[in-house]
Amino acid sequence: MIIMKTDATEEDILRVVLLVEESGLRASVIRGEYQTVIGPVGDERRLDFDRVATFPGVKEAARVEAPYKLISREYARFFGEPGAHSRVSIRGVRIGNGDPVIIAGPCAVESRQQIMRIAEEVKRAGAHILRGGIFKPRSSVHAFQGIGSRGLAGAEEALKWLREAGNAFDMPIVTEVRGESMVELVARYADIMHIGARNMYDQDLLADVARMGKPVLLKRHFGASIEELLSFSEYIAAEGNKDLILCERGIVPVGKGKSYTRYMLDLAAVPVIHKETYLPVIVDPSHGTGRQDLIFDMSCASIAAGADGLMIETHYNPAEALVDGPQMVTPGELRDIIEACQALYRMKQTVRRNRHE
Amino acid sequence: MIIMKTDATEEDILRVVLLVEESGLRASVIRGEYQTVIGPVGDERRLDFDRVATFPGVKEAARVEAPYKLISREYARFFGEPGAHSRVSIRGVRIGNGDPVIIAGPCAVESRQQIMRIAEEVKRAGAHILRGGIFKPRSSVHAFQGIGSRGLAGAEEALKWLREAGNAFDMPIVTEVRGESMVELVARYADIMHIGARNMYDQDLLADVARMGKPVLLKRHFGASIEELLSFSEYIAAEGNKDLILCERGIVPVGKGKSYTRYMLDLAAVPVIHKETYLPVIVDPSHGTGRQDLIFDMSCASIAAGADGLMIETHYNPAEALVDGPQMVTPGELRDIIEACQALYRMKQTVRRNRHE
Amino acid sequence: MIIMKTDATEEDILRVVLLVEESGLRASVIRGEYQTVIGPVGDERRLDFDRVATFPGVKEAARVEAPYKLISREYARFFGEPGAHSRVSIRGVRIGNGDPVIIAGPCAVESRQQIMRIAEEVKRAGAHILRGGIFKPRSSVHAFQGIGSRGLAGAEEALKWLREAGNAFDMPIVTEVRGESMVELVARYADIMHIGARNMYDQDLLADVARMGKPVLLKRHFGASIEELLSFSEYIAAEGNKDLILCERGIVPVGKGKSYTRYMLDLAAVPVIHKETYLPVIVDPSHGTGRQDLIFDMSCASIAAGADGLMIETHYNPAEALVDGPQMVTPGELRDIIEACQALYRMKQTVRRNRHE
Amino acid sequence: MIIMKTDATEEDILRVVLLVEESGLRASVIRGEYQTVIGPVGDERRLDFDRVATFPGVKEAARVEAPYKLISREYARFFGEPGAHSRVSIRGVRIGNGDPVIIAGPCAVESRQQIMRIAEEVKRAGAHILRGGIFKPRSSVHAFQGIGSRGLAGAEEALKWLREAGNAFDMPIVTEVRGESMVELVARYADIMHIGARNMYDQDLLADVARMGKPVLLKRHFGASIEELLSFSEYIAAEGNKDLILCERGIVPVGKGKSYTRYMLDLAAVPVIHKETYLPVIVDPSHGTGRQDLIFDMSCASIAAGADGLMIETHYNPAEALVDGPQMVTPGELRDIIEACQALYRMKQTVRRNRHE
Repeated sequence: MIIMKTDATEEDILRVVLLVEESGLRASVIRGEYQTVIGPVGDERRLDFDRVATFPGVKEAARVEAPYKLISREYARFFGEPGAHSRVSIRGVRIGNGDPVIIAGPCAVESRQQIMRIAEEVKRAGAHILRGGIFKPRSSVHAFQGIGSRGLAGAEEALKWLREAGNAFDMPIVTEVRGESMVELVARYADIMHIGARNMYDQDLLADVARMGKPVLLKRHFGASIEELLSFSEYIAAEGNKDLILCERGIVPVGKGKSYTRYMLDLAAVPVIHKETYLPVIVDPSHGTGRQDLIFDMSCASIAAGADGLMIETHYNPAEALVDGPQMVTPGELRDIIEACQALYRMKQTVRRNRHE
Repeated sequence: MIIMKTDATEEDILRVVLLVEESGLRASVIRGEYQTVIGPVGDERRLDFDRVATFPGVKEAARVEAPYKLISREYARFFGEPGAHSRVSIRGVRIGNGDPVIIAGPCAVESRQQIMRIAEEVKRAGAHILRGGIFKPRSSVHAFQGIGSRGLAGAEEALKWLREAGNAFDMPIVTEVRGESMVELVARYADIMHIGARNMYDQDLLADVARMGKPVLLKRHFGASIEELLSFSEYIAAEGNKDLILCERGIVPVGKGKSYTRYMLDLAAVPVIHKETYLPVIVDPSHGTGRQDLIFDMSCASIAAGADGLMIETHYNPAEALVDGPQMVTPGELRDIIEACQALYRMKQTVRRNRHE
Repeated sequence: MIIMKTDATEEDILRVVLLVEESGLRASVIRGEYQTVIGPVGDERRLDFDRVATFPGVKEAARVEAPYKLISREYARFFGEPGAHSRVSIRGVRIGNGDPVIIAGPCAVESRQQIMRIAEEVKRAGAHILRGGIFKPRSSVHAFQGIGSRGLAGAEEALKWLREAGNAFDMPIVTEVRGESMVELVARYADIMHIGARNMYDQDLLADVARMGKPVLLKRHFGASIEELLSFSEYIAAEGNKDLILCERGIVPVGKGKSYTRYMLDLAAVPVIHKETYLPVIVDPSHGTGRQDLIFDMSCASIAAGADGLMIETHYNPAEALVDGPQMVTPGELRDIIEACQALYRMKQTVRRNRHE
Repeated sequence: MIIMKTDATEEDILRVVLLVEESGLRASVIRGEYQTVIGPVGDERRLDFDRVATFPGVKEAARVEAPYKLISREYARFFGEPGAHSRVSIRGVRIGNGDPVIIAGPCAVESRQQIMRIAEEVKRAGAHILRGGIFKPRSSVHAFQGIGSRGLAGAEEALKWLREAGNAFDMPIVTEVRGESMVELVARYADIMHIGARNMYDQDLLADVARMGKPVLLKRHFGASIEELLSFSEYIAAEGNKDLILCERGIVPVGKGKSYTRYMLDLAAVPVIHKETYLPVIVDPSHGTGRQDLIFDMSCASIAAGADGLMIETHYNPAEALVDGPQMVTPGELRDIIEACQALYRMKQTVRRNRHE
C-alpha cells in the first residue's frame, strides 16, 4: 500500500506506478477525495517498499499481508471523513452510510409492458433503483435463461426496455451481466453492473466488468466464506474500481432434512464486512429465503443488522412470473417493507447515538 | 392427534390414553387452557383412529404424517386465543408473544461472589432471567468443564449460589444440564432447564429433562437443520411438556477460508419456527457470533426478525472470565442492547400493525 | 504426558496419580504391554511437570498442548512395536493392523428367529463380528426406536437373543448403547459397545460407556470435523479405556440439489486418523451411502484407503426390514464384498511393500 | 430426446433440427457409432414430440424431465455396446471403461526447462497424459496467477512449451482455460481443455469451451452437489460435445475445527456418476487432500471406487514449485502410485467378475 501526499502530482503518481510495474506487479490507483492510494496487485515481495518511500510525493509505503487490502478498512480513511464508509453514488442515489436504499423489480425482464408497469409500481412504493434480469444464470441448461439468451439483438432490446423504464420513473437501473462477451453491451445501458452469485468466482468476468468503470454489485456465492467474497472483491478493486457494493444473498443450508428456506441468510456478514472494509453491503432477502412470507421479517432484520440497502424481487402478479414466482412480493407488500425498514433504520440510528459506551 | 371436547372428563381422557397404550404407542397428554389434546407417540399406523373418534369426549381423531406434530402450529389453537403463540411463564416472566425477554449472566458460575455481583448488575441493566453454567460441555476433555465437573457436591453448591443470586435479585434462573445423572439435581434448583447445542441429539437426555415438568430451553445443534431441531423438540413434547423454548445459536460456517464469526446465525429460523410451531424462539448472539463487537447489531437483527428474547453472556470483567471471554459483554453494554431491542421491538409492532395487507 | 519406566512399580504409579489429582486433574492410566503412561486429564497448566519428572519410576514428564493426546500417535510407541497401531482384541478377533474385520448384521434386532438366521448367514459369508441394534436413535420420536424402547425387560430380552446368536455362531457382538441408564445393561451382554453418530457429542455417555472397560466403537457425527471426532474420543481414553475403534460413517452432503447419497463418506479420514492416532478405523458404507447398490464399490474403496474393517448392514430380506431396508445387502452380496475386500487388502499390502521410497 | 433410426439420412436429421429450432429451442446433435440422438436444449414443453415422432428417420421422440439428460445413462446405449460407458479418445489414449489413465505434471508451467524435465520423468513413471497450468485461478488477486497472466504473448509461449513437452514424450496435454478470451488460444494447443473448479458455475465459459470440439475435463466446484455438477455438464453436452470427462477434486470440509485435509474427497461421486451418466470420471487426490502424504492411499481408494483415472500434481522438487508444493509428489512416488493403482484395478476387475449375483 502506497499512500501519496495530498499535494502529490500526476508525475509523482506515474513514477510510482512505473516502478510497481517494472517490479512485475500491476498498480491499482485509487483516487479518494483527498488522497491517492496506489495498491500493488500481485506478489508484493517483489517490490522494494523502502525505495518507494523515498520517491517524491510518497507519504507512506508498506507491505500488507492479506488476501485483500484495496477494499480494507485501512483504505477508508482516504475517502471522505476518517473512519467512514464509502458511498457509491449513482444518478443521485447514494448507497452506504445513510438511509437504506431499496432495489426492486422483477427477477426477469419479460416484455416492455411488464417492466414499465413494474417500474411505475415499485417507484410509487418507494423503491430507489430498478432491477430486472436480462441474462439469468440457471443451474439447468433446460431452464429459462432470460430474454438475453436469445442472442445479442434480443438482449439489447430488453436492455433498452429496462433503460426506458428507469428513465421514465427516474430510477437508476441494475442488471446482471453474464459472459464476458456481454460486458460491453450491458455497460452501455446499465447504471450498476450486477455479478450474480454463481459468477462470484469468475475472476476474469470480475476484472472485465470492473474495467467498465461503472458501479459494481457483487453477490456472495452460496458456498463462499466471507473471506472468499472479500478476496474476489479485490479483483474488482485491483482494476481501480472502488464503486463496489457487496450483497449477502444466502448460503446453502446445512444439516440433514428440511431447511424451510432456499438458502440461509448470514446476516452477521453485514457488520463483519463493515468492520473489514469500507464498502456498502446490501441484502437480498428474496433469494436468501426463497419465500415471499419471510421477506418482511428478514428485511427488517437486515436493516437492523446494519445493511445499507435491500434488493427485493417484485412483480404485480407473482404467480405469472416466468422465474422465481414464490419469492416475489407485490408492490403493495414492497411499500410495507420499505416503510418498516425506514422506521427501523431511524430507530436504530437513534438508539445507536444513545449508546453509553 | 386426538382432540378432546372442552367438557371431556378425566375418565374420557384416561380411556383414550389406555387405547393408545394398548396399541403399543405412548400418549402425550397436552392440557391447554380450553382443551386437552392427546398426541400418540410412535408409529401411528398401529392406532385405529376411526375407533378413537367414537369414544366419549373425543372431538376429533386423525393421523398426522410429519416428524413432529405435538409442537406444530395446528396444536396452537388449543392454547389461548386461536392462531397465537404459546407463552412460557416462569415466576412472573413470560416468554413469547410479547416484549423481548433478556436472559443474561456469565458463561460459567465461578464463585458465589462472582454470580451475586453479575446478577445485581444484569438486573440493573434490565435483564429478566439469570443464566450461569454449572456444567460446561466442551469439545476438549482438557478444557475447563464448569464447576459442576468437580462432582455432585460441587455442582450442588454452585446451583445454590445461582439460586441465591436469582432470589436476591428476583430473576428466574436458567442453567444447562448435561448428563442424565444430573437431571434431578438441576431440576431441584433451576427454573428453566437448558439443553445445550452439543446435546440436542441426545434424545434420552431430552426425555429425562422433559419429565421434570419444568420449562425447557433447547438449543439448535450447530450442524442441525431446522427440521432436525423441530424433530428433536418433539421428544420433549412427547413427554407432555409443552413449556418449551427454542434457541438459535448459530451453525457451523460454510466455505473455504475465514468466516470471521465462530458460528453463523440463521435468523430466518426465527420466523420459520414461528410459522411451523407455537413455540417461543430466542437467539443467542454471544455463541452465535463469538465476538463481543457484533452482539449489539445481531441482537437488534434478532429482535427485528421476530425473536421472543435473547440470551447474552455478560460479565463485569470479560477478560477475567474462565470461559468465552471474547464473546462477553459488560453490564453497561447489556443495558444499551436491551434499550435498543426494546425500542426496535416496539417500532416493529407499530409498523406491523400498519401493514396494508 | 507422563511416561513411566518399564520397571516402575505400582507404588511409583500411585505416587504420580496422587500428585496429579492433588493438582485438580484426573489421571488416566494407560497400561501398555511394556510401559505405563499417565495422562493428566484437564487443564495441564496446574501440574508441575518438572517436579513429576523427579519422582521415582518416571521416565519422562511433559505438557502436551492439543485437544487430544491420550489417543495420539505419540502414545502408540508404548503399545507393542514402535510406530505400530494398536489392535483391539475381542474374543479372538483382532481389529487393527491386519486383515480387514467385517462387522455384519441387521440394523435392528427384530426377533430371536431373525437374528439367529442372519447370524448364521453372515457367518457363512465370512463376517467376523455380529451387529444388531436394540435401541435405535432416530431423528423422529414417531419412528421405530428399536425393540429396546419398549422398556428394560424388552431390551434385555433382545440383548439375550443377540448374545445367543453370537455364541451360536462364534462371533463377538456389537450393539449400540443410548441413554446413560442403559449402559450397564448393555455392558452385561455386548462385547463391543457402540456409540452412534447422533451421540458422539454426548460426553457423559462416552465417559459412562468407557468406564465399563469394554471395547468401544465410536462413530463420527454427520456434522463433525475429524478434530471433533478425535477430541471426543479423548473423553473415552481419559477414562483409561484405550480399546477404542473409530468409525467413519459419512457426513451431511454439501451443496444445492440432489446428492444421490444419504451421507458423504470422507474416506481420507481413514489415513488421517491413522497418522494422528494409534486407533483402528473402520468404515460404515451402509449408512455412509444409504444405497445398497454403492456398498460394493465403497467397501472396496474403504479398504484401499486403509480401513481396518467395515460395518455392513445385512438382512436376508432387505425389503422386510423395519429400518434402513434400502441400504441393506443380502448375505450373498456380503460374501462378494468380503472376498473383494480381502483380495484388495492383500494386493495393497503387496504394492505397499514394493514402494520404492 | 429424439432418437434417429440407424439408417436416418442427414436430411432426416436436418428436418428434425429445424423443427426443434423453430420451436424456440436449440438442437444438440450427438452422433454415436450406431445412432444419432437429438437433444432439444431449453424448455421442452414448447416442442411437439408427437409430431416429431412422425418424421422420417425418427425412431423415438419423448420428453425427459430432468436438469440433465444429454449426459444421462439412457443416452449411453447409442454409443458402442449397450450399457457401456463412453470412452474419450485423445491421440491414442482412451479414458473410460478400461485401465486407469494417469494425468500428471506440475501445477503451473514455470519454464520450458521445467516442463520438459517433468514431462520426461512422469512419462518414465508411467503417466499417460501431461498436465500443466498456464492460467491459475486463485482466490487472491495477490497470489501467483500462472505465467499466462502476463498477457497473451506469455500465455502462448507457455502453451508452446507444454505442447513441445507433450510431443517430445508422446503424451496428449491438458491445461486449464480461464476467461472466455483465452478459449481459442488454449484450443489451438491443448488436447484436453480443463475447466477448473472455481469456474464450474460459469456457463458461458462452459459453452465456449465445448464449442471448440475438443475433449473437456470439468472439475466439480468445491461447494457443488453432484446434481449441480451434472446440471452444468449438460451445458457442455448441449453444444453437441460429448467428449466430456468429469473430475472429483474434493469439497469444502464440514464441521468445527481442523479437518486435516484441504478439501474432502467425495469418492461415492465416482460410482454415482457412473450410474447416472455414460461419462468417465477421474479423481484429483492432489487438490482433494492438499497433502502429499495422503495421495498414495487416496489414489488407491479412488481406483477401488471405480475411477477411470487420476490427476496427480508431480514435480521433481516439490519444495521449489511456485504453487501447491505441499501437495506435489515426486516422479518416484508417482511410479509407486501408478503401479499400485494398476494392480488394484486388475484385482478389482477380477473380483467383480467373480461376483455371484
